[in-house]
Amino acid sequence: MSEAGGSARIIVTGGTFDKRYDAIKGELTFSETHLPGLLEQARVKLPLAVDIRLLIDSLQMTDAHRQQVLEACRESPERSIVVVHGTDTMVETAQVVGRAALGKAVVFTGAMVPYSVQGSDAPFNLGFALAASLTLPAGAYVAMNAKIFAWDDVMKDKAEGTFKPRSA
Amino acid sequence: MSEAGGSARIIVTGGTFDKRYDAIKGELTFSETHLPGLLEQARVKLPLAVDIRLLIDSLQMTDAHRQQVLEACRESPERSIVVVHGTDTMVETAQVVGRAALGKAVVFTGAMVPYSVQGSDAPFNLGFALAASLTLPAGAYVAMNAKIFAWDDVMKDKAEGTFKPRSA
Amino acid sequence: MSEAGGSARIIVTGGTFDKRYDAIKGELTFSETHLPGLLEQARVKLPLAVDIRLLIDSLQMTDAHRQQVLEACRESPERSIVVVHGTDTMVETAQVVGRAALGKAVVFTGAMVPYSVQGSDAPFNLGFALAASLTLPAGAYVAMNAKIFAWDDVMKDKAEGTFKPRSA
Amino acid sequence: MSEAGGSARIIVTGGTFDKRYDAIKGELTFSETHLPGLLEQARVKLPLAVDIRLLIDSLQMTDAHRQQVLEACRESPERSIVVVHGTDTMVETAQVVGRAALGKAVVFTGAMVPYSVQGSDAPFNLGFALAASLTLPAGAYVAMNAKIFAWDDVMKDKAEGTFKPRSA
Repeated sequence: MSEAGGSARIIVTGGTFDKRYDAIKGELTFSETHLPGLLEQARVKLPLAVDIRLLIDSLQMTDAHRQQVLEACRESPERSIVVVHGTDTMVETAQVVGRAALGKAVVFTGAMVPYSVQGSDAPFNLGFALAASLTLPAGAYVAMNAKIFAWDDVMKDKAEGTFKPRSA
Repeated sequence: MSEAGGSARIIVTGGTFDKRYDAIKGELTFSETHLPGLLEQARVKLPLAVDIRLLIDSLQMTDAHRQQVLEACRESPERSIVVVHGTDTMVETAQVVGRAALGKAVVFTGAMVPYSVQGSDAPFNLGFALAASLTLPAGAYVAMNAKIFAWDDVMKDKAEGTFKPRSA
Repeated sequence: MSEAGGSARIIVTGGTFDKRYDAIKGELTFSETHLPGLLEQARVKLPLAVDIRLLIDSLQMTDAHRQQVLEACRESPERSIVVVHGTDTMVETAQVVGRAALGKAVVFTGAMVPYSVQGSDAPFNLGFALAASLTLPAGAYVAMNAKIFAWDDVMKDKAEGTFKPRSA
Repeated sequence: MSEAGGSARIIVTGGTFDKRYDAIKGELTFSETHLPGLLEQARVKLPLAVDIRLLIDSLQMTDAHRQQVLEACRESPERSIVVVHGTDTMVETAQVVGRAALGKAVVFTGAMVPYSVQGSDAPFNLGFALAASLTLPAGAYVAMNAKIFAWDDVMKDKAEGTFKPRSA
């Protein structure tokens, strides 16, 4: 089974997934990514490269930031890539990567509740996106709510906090 | 994208994944599955049937139990199936389902640490297995440690608590 | 032992202790108190009245709000009272209650990290304050950082996020 | 306020409080105490000595073990002592310490659910017991279920998993 012998890359950009509570400021901020702890907890044995590119709220992501994400995908020696991204502009960045047609499976995911908050969807979403990146054909995808969306047919329903096909 | 419009079935059999601490007995036992809570936390919107077949330790699983699991897979109207199973005999049950060649993607997963214990791998593993069931071709698989194994080339390394190819 | 036969009252005013993550807004807000869940988790059998007076950030607490807290203490039939309060102005409200010399043991506590966030100090602080209210002589106190302070000799060190005697 | 300037000692003996899940063995065992992590989480600033005497299930506690606990209390330079103990024989050890009349406030506590399991009563109980040790007169006490019991008038109701006065 070729998948068992595979490898993958996780590109971290920040987003709700990685927000932490700052007890002094009394608010959720970015300090460092939760990825290494989460991967250890998940007992991951797949060879995995973690590339921490950005640690920002996706509402603050500029075109230049999106080019950085695209560049990180392009440089990746692994063909299976998960991009951890804020949900608010995940679709826009997926479009930038999707249009570039890199010949790799790039799966965007994130979280509606930070990993550091009780009841987070982060571990499930990361597992879901990682398996998708190992099994899907080349392309860019958004993986949220246990659904897989092509980059050119997905939108965030901000009122519900869920992702849907644009065409529905 | 067809996957976004899919659906799946989760067949629960118990295992470490679903053990809960009984404060009176002072030990981990089975009372009810954590699946509904976990799926809500993961904000799953994929149409999903949950079939609670068994709630037992996989060391207590008999041939008759394995036939029940096979039957549950056979009866499933969904082609994408996740079986939540104890890790100790997960491979044996996967073999029973794999040999039956049901024409469905059946992905076995479980947990090394119960969902109810801090640092559980359960949410990640469930997300990983669910995406695998949606994207893999028909067959039976074991999905653990962020790896996907074919049913006929996998073993549990009990000393390490990880899964490996039998052929390695 | 008279303490074992006692009873107490918890007056809820909000504060970091009770903030919850709102996944749609993407921020910490107030919706309802965590007190009942926390008390069940702590397996509390002491007769306990929970009086939810306010659910606000303590930076927004006005003199009128502080009078409401004082009123709640005055009306309490229980002589042992815990007030769950935001840390930023906890000292000011403790002074209002302390000056009133109600003849009851009123212990102010709160949390630097919300109960709903991993690594919260809320359960420990609530247990600490509750025992203090059952055992201390009448007076108003602040109980934080596993220390007990008299209402007229305490300040918050905002840079460190800890409480200290004013006189030190 | 003298309490704010105090100090205390925590004597660890094991018990459910400190059980951890061993993923390889698939059961709850003792490896190391959770105390340091818990105290950091609780943002404790009180000068506190932690004395790890034993890490055993209280059902396995012998008379010799109880003498070790008594010795640890006797040697303690701090007059405020919390003993973290398994609930099953907590009362017996409290009697040994109580009869010795050490002139210190020794408060026994523990947990019905391990600290490492979701929904644990451990942080609340530790906070409760610590405040009790700082404020109660010299004597030996059991502090569980948000109640304080004198060592010579307490029993565990094993069916309910709660503590009660023996005299009730």
